Amino acid sequence: MKLLLASGNAHKLVELRAALPGWEIGLADAALPPETGSTFRENARAKAEAGRAAAPADAWVAGEDSGIEVAGLADRPGIYSARYAREDATDEENVVKLLGELEGVEGGGRGARYVCELVAIAPDGRELCVRGELEGAIAHAPRGDAGFGYDPVFVPERESETVAELGDAWKSEHSHRARAARLLAGLLGEP
Amino acid sequence: MKLLLASGNAHKLVELRAALPGWEIGLADAALPPETGSTFRENARAKAEAGRAAAPADAWVAGEDSGIEVAGLADRPGIYSARYAREDATDEENVVKLLGELEGVEGGGRGARYVCELVAIAPDGRELCVRGELEGAIAHAPRGDAGFGYDPVFVPERESETVAELGDAWKSEHSHRARAARLLAGLLGEP
Repeated sequence: MKLLLASGNAHKLVELRAALPGWEIGLADAALPPETGSTFRENARAKAEAGRAAAPADAWVAGEDSGIEVAGLADRPGIYSARYAREDATDEENVVKLLGELEGVEGGGRGARYVCELVAIAPDGRELCVRGELEGAIAHAPRGDAGFGYDPVFVPERESETVAELGDAWKSEHSHRARAARLLAGLLGEP
Repeated sequence: MKLLLASGNAHKLVELRAALPGWEIGLADAALPPETGSTFRENARAKAEAGRAAAPADAWVAGEDSGIEVAGLADRPGIYSARYAREDATDEENVVKLLGELEGVEGGGRGARYVCELVAIAPDGRELCVRGELEGAIAHAPRGDAGFGYDPVFVPERESETVAELGDAWKSEHSHRARAARLLAGLLGEP
């Protein structure tokens, strides 16, 4: 089965491939819509629908949206995670902003959740939506070089290292994106 | 697997059960939201979400919306099929209104499509959306007693009788609702 990801983020394509060995996963050839939804799922759906219009008839098209919800910030930045510091912010700028907002916040207030929503649409209009989550906490300073986004400051529950320290192999098994991908694969059946 | 239908229409529960033998299908215990969506799918999703809130943790909840799209009426009545003649219209009133709108329309203009969208939501947020369609044409007068809605004036392609003449056994195999139900079952797996 062929699955095309409607995304401009190469990291996400790499992670999806690692999480779904055996699947033929490419990039959808489509202009991505602006993220105007009020939920991860609405944004993911809009990308999938945009990709579906231009996709070949034998492919499912997936849209993805993901982000981080921080307890002490009333679940912000949420759907604004990639543009937290400013529009077109770098990962570093967003991490700096997050650490600044959490200055003086300790304990449960640093609790956080990585969320990934995947929406896959078939040529016949069938649509599958799945949500993967990863619970954890925000570290006090960045550590590690792997991954992207908030990985250098996200420490998953039951771990002491950040996702950026735990590395790609760990992510392909445990990340919010890997969990969502496996739920999707469970619904799609064998590759 | 348990599947609860968020619907006030007992006909739809009966049809869903007939189309999915072996499944445990009940009614969701929820107040249904007003149909404010602009597509069948949006309306079906709103019902499923309303039903999900009150459902037990071991059940999928399905919302359904369906209607008829008529070529000579630019695909109307569409999502307004159940309230075509007026709010809370009877099936007979809607059929009379439809036949009136099609007076003098012949051939391709009487072409029509029955559409059923089903949206099923799991306790963990997984969401499946499927669409079943049945192509046909609008007869010049009602015939038959089975079914409901526009069944007495809907003649499926490759048939000469109306759906209301073809009867329940035919519907449980070929109807737009049966087709959507089987697509859903294919995604959910064995009962």
